[in-house]
Amino acid sequence: MQNFQFYNPVRILFGKGQIAAIAREIPAGARILLTYGGGSIKANGVYDQVKAALAGRPLFEFGGIQPNPRLETLLRAVELVRKEGLDFLLAVGGGSVLDGTKFIAAAVHFQGNPWDIVAKAAPVRTAVPLGAVLTLPATGSEMNCFAVITKWETREKLPFECPLVYPRFSVLDPETTFSLSLRQIGNGIVDAFVHTIEQYMTYPVNAPLQDRLAESILQTLIEEGPKTLAHPRDYDVRANLMWCATLALNGLIAAGVPQDWATHMIGHELTALHDLDHAQTLAVVLPALLEVKRDTKRAKLLQYAERVWKIHSGQPEERISAAIARTRGFFEQVGLPTRLSAYGVGPDTILLVADRLQRRGWVGLGERADITPAQVREILERSA
Amino acid sequence: MQNFQFYNPVRILFGKGQIAAIAREIPAGARILLTYGGGSIKANGVYDQVKAALAGRPLFEFGGIQPNPRLETLLRAVELVRKEGLDFLLAVGGGSVLDGTKFIAAAVHFQGNPWDIVAKAAPVRTAVPLGAVLTLPATGSEMNCFAVITKWETREKLPFECPLVYPRFSVLDPETTFSLSLRQIGNGIVDAFVHTIEQYMTYPVNAPLQDRLAESILQTLIEEGPKTLAHPRDYDVRANLMWCATLALNGLIAAGVPQDWATHMIGHELTALHDLDHAQTLAVVLPALLEVKRDTKRAKLLQYAERVWKIHSGQPEERISAAIARTRGFFEQVGLPTRLSAYGVGPDTILLVADRLQRRGWVGLGERADITPAQVREILERSA
Repeated sequence: MQNFQFYNPVRILFGKGQIAAIAREIPAGARILLTYGGGSIKANGVYDQVKAALAGRPLFEFGGIQPNPRLETLLRAVELVRKEGLDFLLAVGGGSVLDGTKFIAAAVHFQGNPWDIVAKAAPVRTAVPLGAVLTLPATGSEMNCFAVITKWETREKLPFECPLVYPRFSVLDPETTFSLSLRQIGNGIVDAFVHTIEQYMTYPVNAPLQDRLAESILQTLIEEGPKTLAHPRDYDVRANLMWCATLALNGLIAAGVPQDWATHMIGHELTALHDLDHAQTLAVVLPALLEVKRDTKRAKLLQYAERVWKIHSGQPEERISAAIARTRGFFEQVGLPTRLSAYGVGPDTILLVADRLQRRGWVGLGERADITPAQVREILERSA
Repeated sequence: MQNFQFYNPVRILFGKGQIAAIAREIPAGARILLTYGGGSIKANGVYDQVKAALAGRPLFEFGGIQPNPRLETLLRAVELVRKEGLDFLLAVGGGSVLDGTKFIAAAVHFQGNPWDIVAKAAPVRTAVPLGAVLTLPATGSEMNCFAVITKWETREKLPFECPLVYPRFSVLDPETTFSLSLRQIGNGIVDAFVHTIEQYMTYPVNAPLQDRLAESILQTLIEEGPKTLAHPRDYDVRANLMWCATLALNGLIAAGVPQDWATHMIGHELTALHDLDHAQTLAVVLPALLEVKRDTKRAKLLQYAERVWKIHSGQPEERISAAIARTRGFFEQVGLPTRLSAYGVGPDTILLVADRLQRRGWVGLGERADITPAQVREILERSA
């Protein structure tokens, strides 16, 4: 096992009716900014529940945060927070609203160009406290200090990390997810699955508990994912998906083990260039990446085949191929095509992605930093 | 799944050489009380590492905290903290030192009789901050807000819980455990195992992720436990045991599911009356309790038999019996007898335990509060 630090102070309020609890979680007297996205929270009753919980308190609103939240939009929220002297942010929505709100929190008191927080990992000394009401199980943003922000002007999609932007609390009420589209739920399943894989599918470091925790999430997603698509109002099944997505990226399964994240880095470029859904890019990249890296990931691929997919027979290479095929099949089963062509993305993009990664100084990728620009092209060619 | 809150702000510093990191985790200028037990930390080098990390800082010491830490001893530490105006506690040792230090932290500013914090769950409004250097993987105290305290005068051993006594940080360096006796390690394995069982072996609530997380800990303990007894200086194996013990009682596997804890409640009485090691009492009580409650725990016992012990054949009752026998065998394998007689405890104790629990108003016990005094007697008779 590798040395590690684990720290996660987010208070999770999980279950039916928990939105009402935000009243006691937000400090008395706080001047609150409610942030949200395209307005679905007004259609599904979540907005009304939040307003009822905070009735009589100073509450400002900022809607319109996009999927893949854009710097240009978020800076307008930063201005509003400064102008009105707001001191608590309440993100209500999915991962994009949460990520965007984390950026707002970090940018309000930042001296200099706020994009440097993302592009240059400029240190953030203080942040506005935030809380969240999650309405889309997928990114894990509700219980971590990560965010991914897009600068629309230059089509750059980049992550940042800052311990000051852990939500003080996150409400996870599975009922708030009943109105999601099947596409959004399918995306969430794949997102959580690939988050787990990024922290699991590397090389063994004698960390059997971490391995089993990751396998627990994968197996539960495989079991519950199709069920929650078939029965979108089954509370328990949706609750299981929601808790899987949170634990997939709250730091626990990463503790003490190597991590990959190459699929995400490549996928971010595809979203930045073609505005594909984040999870769609993961569904495209991961199966091809596993094929290309099957030698360096061999031991874990065999373990994954056996424990997650129950593939016990065949030669090792056959078992690995079968596990990758099952992974691809699972993504397709929950509604996500796994080929670039299905999204109308042609071969000209392949060179462009490798080039952009290289210019950003981000090769080699992966747990061994051994994924070269040539391999990025190979991965994308296999995904064509 | 049941509604739940999850909150755990403990910073874990895991791995070789991490004791040096406490210097930056303890606030500058803090007046520190170092608490410890019987002095083994002076023999194994941990004391020297702590002193080196805190060289030049105001550091007081309080040793002699017993296994099953005693109120009478801890109150002397409370006096010292008050008299010297100390404002940070650093517990260095196993679960008893940590539990005792949590009590000291809660008692320093408490108005009234400090034993009420435990015996009457009297509310604690403020506590002295504490950190920990763990030297014995077992109780999980390093990452929770629970403690168990013994009032020696009346032979009462009782738990308390208080969110203010979460350690600010806990150092888990597996190397600090190399000097433990096989008995201490065997105890730790059983303690972590039974903690997990208390949160798992109840009834299904459609929480498959929580089930698998608990099974992950159980399987890893079964796999790594005997290895770490056979190879006490194998770093990785010891690290795996240490992380299992922490995750077995940090709130994660309890989130959203029913909990039992009857084995602990009965076991505490045995320790209070006969000074048995905590884990010894669990090894005695659990197999018999599973036999007596095999009907109400039937679904989970069958799942446990299949997933943890890989028992796939036989009639259901046979599979349950086999799983309980394997559990008993595992405790014996790691060095803990599972019969009262092996510890010299006779049948007169059986009536006494049931009577003490009843007088304390603690029946019925268990996840359905359906374990009657008669069943407590039956459990102990089966353990005779």
